[in-house]
Amino acid sequence: MAPPQTAAALIIGNEILSGKIAEGNLRVLAKTLGSIGVRLERVVMVLDDRTSIAHEVRSLSKSYDVVFTSGGVGPTHDDVTIASVAEAFGVAVEQSPEIEEMLRMYYGSDLTEGHLFMARIPQGAELVTTDEMPWHTIVMKNVWILPGVPQIFQMKMPVVRTLLAGGVAFQSLAIYTTLDEGHLKPLLDRVVAEHPDVDLGSYPKWREPRYRTKVTFDARDLSLVERARDALVAILPADALVRIDEE
Amino acid sequence: MAPPQTAAALIIGNEILSGKIAEGNLRVLAKTLGSIGVRLERVVMVLDDRTSIAHEVRSLSKSYDVVFTSGGVGPTHDDVTIASVAEAFGVAVEQSPEIEEMLRMYYGSDLTEGHLFMARIPQGAELVTTDEMPWHTIVMKNVWILPGVPQIFQMKMPVVRTLLAGGVAFQSLAIYTTLDEGHLKPLLDRVVAEHPDVDLGSYPKWREPRYRTKVTFDARDLSLVERARDALVAILPADALVRIDEE
Repeated sequence: MAPPQTAAALIIGNEILSGKIAEGNLRVLAKTLGSIGVRLERVVMVLDDRTSIAHEVRSLSKSYDVVFTSGGVGPTHDDVTIASVAEAFGVAVEQSPEIEEMLRMYYGSDLTEGHLFMARIPQGAELVTTDEMPWHTIVMKNVWILPGVPQIFQMKMPVVRTLLAGGVAFQSLAIYTTLDEGHLKPLLDRVVAEHPDVDLGSYPKWREPRYRTKVTFDARDLSLVERARDALVAILPADALVRIDEE
Repeated sequence: MAPPQTAAALIIGNEILSGKIAEGNLRVLAKTLGSIGVRLERVVMVLDDRTSIAHEVRSLSKSYDVVFTSGGVGPTHDDVTIASVAEAFGVAVEQSPEIEEMLRMYYGSDLTEGHLFMARIPQGAELVTTDEMPWHTIVMKNVWILPGVPQIFQMKMPVVRTLLAGGVAFQSLAIYTTLDEGHLKPLLDRVVAEHPDVDLGSYPKWREPRYRTKVTFDARDLSLVERARDALVAILPADALVRIDEE
């Protein structure tokens, strides 16, 4: 199977949308995907609502090569991701004997009926593991169902990297200049026009004494990235260039 | 006009989706909205792509009382929010004499053609200000166009609070327990069933020595929130309650 090119993420949880806690998984996921050449193109955040989640999963799953959900996989009433993904694909929820066995081993005599709710999976889901991550990750078609707790989410990243690798990683370089965007604009416009295959980003920095704007250059081909970067450096006033950086 | 009840946010920028920078405005917006009784129900993040942004703005503007965009309002090639919002509403982009005057005053003799790009607005947009925030905020129908730079985004929050206030703020209380979710589940299920107007959230904490799970109680009516909280406290084993907190 060809490695995925595009991805979307669905972040689930009232606590994120109410501002109670800061979202902590998106950046980790974005960097992991970038390192294996998968472009994260869309993120949606929704409440713990089964209908919204099912609708989003269905729609994202059709439009992107791979989809990651974050959150809503515990055993309590507000954990509705498994049921929603099952609904999205029109399948039932079933109990996974493999996960149940792991839970029984882990909790031993402390195990409750509540814990066993964490063994639910959408019917037909795959359970993926690697040597470093023996706990199962649930993947339904092209939808990876990941936990919201940042420490556990992060532990899943090597699994994602191992199983979806094969693409060409994105290359990113940056320069920092004392020019503000108003002065930089005509120079940037020239480089953008002459280097259509490189994605240029311009980011003003607020109250930073050393520079005014960071300019980034991104593409899958490092030589193209370097060429665009060098083109801007060549037309910048010499005293306006503060630093040249690799990302 | 009745105060808005529901909101959505559209976060714009390649730098967020590539993981280059961490998203920094969502939580600030969520808390501001919560304090004036507006529920943030959906967040979408997209690349600097005019078609995607226009499509999202059109769709969110129809489904939510108020929409906030973040990012893409500078003068460079990757700042396409103004043009996209105009496209969403089928209007042209025009130059605002009011913003142009502010820019001329601010930049003085340093002003370039590039700076004047920041005076573009969708035709028919309102420019809102308060005494504390004399720089204009651009509002097109129910869509507030906010800057992505976190420090400036934050400065806009008092404007949002002042102009959209009037709703009943959300009330939130929390307790912390040594029970894990597997043991907590049957107790939570009882409280959820008996307090349907209160939104209960259950959040396991990873590697926290003092407690295992935080439970939150949310509604617009504080007495309902307190009643649900007290109901859970009453059925928790006495030694399982670590702390009772206001948010």
